[in-house]
Amino acid sequence: MQNIFFNTHHAPIGAFASFTLGFPGASGGLGLELGRPANQNIYIGLESEEPLRYELLPFYEEVSARSESERYEAGLHAPLASAAQLRSFERGGIRREFQLGTDTWSAGDLTFRIHSPVRSIPDPELAEREDLRRALVPAVLCELTVDNTRGAHSRRAFFGFQGDDPYSAMRVLGDGKADGVRGVGQGRHLAIATQDADVRCGLGFRLTDILEERSENLDFGLGVAGALLMDVPAGERRTFEFAVCFYRGGIVTSGIDCSYYYTRLFDRIEDVAAYALGAAPEILAASKASDDLLAHSRLSEDQRFMLAHAIRGYCASTEMLDRDGEALWVVNEGEYRMINTFDLTVDHLFFELKMNPWAVRNVLDQFIETYSYRDEVHFPGDTALYPGGLSFTHDMGVANVFSRPGHSCYEKTGLDGCFSHMTHEQLVNWLCCATTYVAYTDDQPWLARRLSIFEECLQSLLNRDHPDPEQRNGLMGLDSSRTDHGAEITTYDSLDKSLGQARNNVYMGVKTWASYVALERLFAAQGRADLARTSGRQADLCARTIAQSLEGCCIPAVIGEGNTARILSAIEGLVFPHFHGDRDALDPEGRFGNLLGALKTHFQNVLKPGVCLFPDGGWKLSSTSNNSWLSKIYLAQHVARAVLGIDHAMVTANADAAHVEWLLDPELSYWAWSDQMVSGRALGSRYYPRGVTAILWLSEE
Amino acid sequence: MQNIFFNTHHAPIGAFASFTLGFPGASGGLGLELGRPANQNIYIGLESEEPLRYELLPFYEEVSARSESERYEAGLHAPLASAAQLRSFERGGIRREFQLGTDTWSAGDLTFRIHSPVRSIPDPELAEREDLRRALVPAVLCELTVDNTRGAHSRRAFFGFQGDDPYSAMRVLGDGKADGVRGVGQGRHLAIATQDADVRCGLGFRLTDILEERSENLDFGLGVAGALLMDVPAGERRTFEFAVCFYRGGIVTSGIDCSYYYTRLFDRIEDVAAYALGAAPEILAASKASDDLLAHSRLSEDQRFMLAHAIRGYCASTEMLDRDGEALWVVNEGEYRMINTFDLTVDHLFFELKMNPWAVRNVLDQFIETYSYRDEVHFPGDTALYPGGLSFTHDMGVANVFSRPGHSCYEKTGLDGCFSHMTHEQLVNWLCCATTYVAYTDDQPWLARRLSIFEECLQSLLNRDHPDPEQRNGLMGLDSSRTDHGAEITTYDSLDKSLGQARNNVYMGVKTWASYVALERLFAAQGRADLARTSGRQADLCARTIAQSLEGCCIPAVIGEGNTARILSAIEGLVFPHFHGDRDALDPEGRFGNLLGALKTHFQNVLKPGVCLFPDGGWKLSSTSNNSWLSKIYLAQHVARAVLGIDHAMVTANADAAHVEWLLDPELSYWAWSDQMVSGRALGSRYYPRGVTAILWLSEE
Repeated sequence: MQNIFFNTHHAPIGAFASFTLGFPGASGGLGLELGRPANQNIYIGLESEEPLRYELLPFYEEVSARSESERYEAGLHAPLASAAQLRSFERGGIRREFQLGTDTWSAGDLTFRIHSPVRSIPDPELAEREDLRRALVPAVLCELTVDNTRGAHSRRAFFGFQGDDPYSAMRVLGDGKADGVRGVGQGRHLAIATQDADVRCGLGFRLTDILEERSENLDFGLGVAGALLMDVPAGERRTFEFAVCFYRGGIVTSGIDCSYYYTRLFDRIEDVAAYALGAAPEILAASKASDDLLAHSRLSEDQRFMLAHAIRGYCASTEMLDRDGEALWVVNEGEYRMINTFDLTVDHLFFELKMNPWAVRNVLDQFIETYSYRDEVHFPGDTALYPGGLSFTHDMGVANVFSRPGHSCYEKTGLDGCFSHMTHEQLVNWLCCATTYVAYTDDQPWLARRLSIFEECLQSLLNRDHPDPEQRNGLMGLDSSRTDHGAEITTYDSLDKSLGQARNNVYMGVKTWASYVALERLFAAQGRADLARTSGRQADLCARTIAQSLEGCCIPAVIGEGNTARILSAIEGLVFPHFHGDRDALDPEGRFGNLLGALKTHFQNVLKPGVCLFPDGGWKLSSTSNNSWLSKIYLAQHVARAVLGIDHAMVTANADAAHVEWLLDPELSYWAWSDQMVSGRALGSRYYPRGVTAILWLSEE
Repeated sequence: MQNIFFNTHHAPIGAFASFTLGFPGASGGLGLELGRPANQNIYIGLESEEPLRYELLPFYEEVSARSESERYEAGLHAPLASAAQLRSFERGGIRREFQLGTDTWSAGDLTFRIHSPVRSIPDPELAEREDLRRALVPAVLCELTVDNTRGAHSRRAFFGFQGDDPYSAMRVLGDGKADGVRGVGQGRHLAIATQDADVRCGLGFRLTDILEERSENLDFGLGVAGALLMDVPAGERRTFEFAVCFYRGGIVTSGIDCSYYYTRLFDRIEDVAAYALGAAPEILAASKASDDLLAHSRLSEDQRFMLAHAIRGYCASTEMLDRDGEALWVVNEGEYRMINTFDLTVDHLFFELKMNPWAVRNVLDQFIETYSYRDEVHFPGDTALYPGGLSFTHDMGVANVFSRPGHSCYEKTGLDGCFSHMTHEQLVNWLCCATTYVAYTDDQPWLARRLSIFEECLQSLLNRDHPDPEQRNGLMGLDSSRTDHGAEITTYDSLDKSLGQARNNVYMGVKTWASYVALERLFAAQGRADLARTSGRQADLCARTIAQSLEGCCIPAVIGEGNTARILSAIEGLVFPHFHGDRDALDPEGRFGNLLGALKTHFQNVLKPGVCLFPDGGWKLSSTSNNSWLSKIYLAQHVARAVLGIDHAMVTANADAAHVEWLLDPELSYWAWSDQMVSGRALGSRYYPRGVTAILWLSEE
């Protein structure tokens, strides 16, 4: 990798928390419930061979904490002197080993490793408490190793941070109540802790005030910086273990009152620390297993990097809540922090089914029970209303505020662009998720309980095609009355009409086709031949409409509306029958051969420079927009290789390298993994969870 | 008042919360647990006669919330248009009526009044729940009046804010559950609410996006600004009522686990709003009573302003906590947020006894039970240690983090300046508070329970004078072993040695004398003649030492150490026997006539330009420092007039006008009431509670 100084998440699962680190300056830190890095000073360093000269990893800024102490000494002018001096390690001498479960920095005689294993959460309705504790402990483990075997004198190392909570002070942990846990933290919610009795903990106005402070003054409560100090004698090599911990007690959401699920498992942050430190051997083994998962795969180095980076982003956005004793699963939408944005849920689907299938069911149920609605529909430019049906909201709220039932925080009426409704897309998303959940888990009890919803969804889809069954063509033809005579949009809300308009969109069309195909199978298996037949007929109509719209080499982005844009995302919906193992549907010689052939032709003709390739080889989702989304590119790459059988080199060759370079931008890699790349620059959907679509790559052999 | 645009607090009692308002720009707002104004946009305004042109009070900044919406539209460049236009009312046309319980702004046809009555909290061990709810409801009431009687069309008024919580989103309140409460808020902790069914509530990226938004889009959850909208038809005059509410649930402190006491009385912020709005008539009457308290007093306009401003600062810093079902009283130290700083407690004493005497007892008990310690003492420059005794910590922690038992967050060892120990001062402060509490309340059961503490304190005082009883002179002669051979300081930590050094300091000396005088009476009344005799002897010694140190016209700040500074604060300690009604002790012809005469001579000779007067007539606590503290000036003014009988004109004339001008500084009045004035500029101890010493002025007739 060309640039090793990019931020990435080191996140426990389900805690809406991240120890973000990697971008130089006060650009990372212990972030809880944030849509951005915490921007704290993180102090990781070691005394050099020259006493009192400390060298640090470059994750801090030389702050004028002088001003912090001056606040107390309005009338004094005596300088605060400290013998300690700080400097960053030379950038060129710093090495980083970035993997899925571990992230390791080394410089000089210092090694710092963060362990954030990626693992499943057992179904909370069935799991043992101890298994839930292991999976959900809101902490990441860090190891700091000092190799002073060649040193001439004892050297002091440290790990600390400067918190930025507006409400509560920094503090020294260590009343001895929780298994000898000691450390520094802020309020009740952040901490860096250890059980190592050789480590001292302290606060000061500045790091330099802590490093050389006498031990009895280390508890200085006015300090805004905190650090743990370790002395390593000459000739020794020592490793110290730390837990970076998060804890938010009490009810944390509004709209729906929830607490963090982990508060059922841990009483306070000291308990979190004690558990994590006590479980260190197990955590280290788990992070190694996560590393191995990718290291033993056939993915290229670029692919591994992107997948690991993306999974970290996903984990940091997850939030497992407790609502009246039951688990409520949330993925927050990166910098936007929207709750369970449905058009992200459908992209997280493949990763979640692999890791936590119960979470998929949990979210589908939430949408049914609280975030669904029924509407009417209208033709564009026509005021007449026709029966609509069931659909689902774009999201469930934002930043721990649940929106009112039946409404997202995002959707407004009267619009036809960004912030309009996504009624059709969320209907299709529910079906894509639900049919895939059933196909993957074979959860028949749930299906039996929810079968009427599938039926309602089918009727809703039909109504959105055309009120007259004879005139249906399989595509969305009418917009929701919720738009109040505006127009529905798609998840690609910030692109132009090529992807942003829902009606007659080929991206939406192929997903709709996939829904009909899945419904046909599902209803057939349930002995509902009538509904299966209806679904199958719609699948045929949809396939035919799309296939027939091939104009020469390409399918227009919006069918039948004179749109000349070309979109890569046309092929996206093919992922569902593929993931369902529906070989019939994807047989090039089979029932949908025309559709498949048209999409393949289309794809091969648009994946070209000047159409859907950027000059650097990166993929351009639409020929008419410079805004391209990595999560969707990852998905399309998978479909191109695994479904359309496009040559691996053509799909992957320069593209992955370009995409990696986008993520490693020396300025924008502050945002960790980001989705929306405008001409390769991360300008939207930053700090984002959606990149886990790349998990599909692992299934390709 | 020359400048009406100064910040002041509008604060409920005991909620560590303030609706701060008055300084132009985004400089006030709904602050919870902050050591500074919340720096939020506060939107208070009215549509002008010209439709869509809105005029606001100047408490907002035209923000580029454009950038907020742009985050969602990385690829789009269509401008977000809004028909509404904002402008501030002309400053010259704005009027303010600033009182103790109300603060009223008027401009054009708009009047906005904030009610924050100052009232007592009944002793929580004895009080009825309903009385506690009335006193502790964490809300302030606002009235917005639109006079559209001469208007030609309906005009829209609004009240809103833009929150800045890093963790949770803005939201629209109003699920109808809590007595029809609706409004806008942030997370679970801030809200502006109403029960007026004619008011609409909404969120938007900017205020302008809300003002002209269609009603069905007002729930836009991504909005970062929130407002309540009111339409007043032509020809009408209407007043709308709002509750500005605060609520922090769960455990909020560490070190000692506490929740806000009000969480026992209210379940959530909607309940707070419903209660406050329901109690509006009572609250309005109470704020009127607070206004009348000062309006009917004999205080000058300058005095009323300073006292009202200071009381508001005190209320905003109060925090009534619930520790395992028992009340724990906290006053936070303004911008520093230290918990129950003892050298502030002793200054808050007079106000607290008047309002909430149980709170004084509560804090004294906390100091005894958790924040006391026992030490040894040493002579300066000598390593030999002698018995010391009981004393108390400088504070109990900072910003909701309680420090470990027996330790403050502030005090360090090995120092002789700022951040050193204040052992002797806090011992004296405990005695001043405790003897005054007993004198004022005659709480004999408490005295009986704590009598041994008084005895220990006396012994500790003696030990700090001289280990050899024969060599005692009544003053502090030895420093605590906690300084590790440094030196103790006083509350005047940021001044030079004139007030900063504790040992042999005349300020400390007179307070020590007052402690002995009070102990003599207390022990005598308890039939402890031996201890009364010892106390009385020490009082005599102390008085003699100080009186004898009069060198010509003045007493040196530090007695017997060659210090030539002159300090006004020498007379401070006289407040205690005066407040106790101990006429004997203050009889100029009586037992301590020499001390009183010396102090009066001293005072009259230092209250002169070039010594202890600034050029503007403001008081200068020390001749050798430009750092002067208003809280202490207020106290000294009271002592000069009420105890020493100094001519009222000499004490008050130019001084009060100068002090008012300091507080109304066009830049530093951002900080509401502040204490530390360096050459008249508020550079330390800002946003501070300590000014309630001015309550003593009310007792002068």
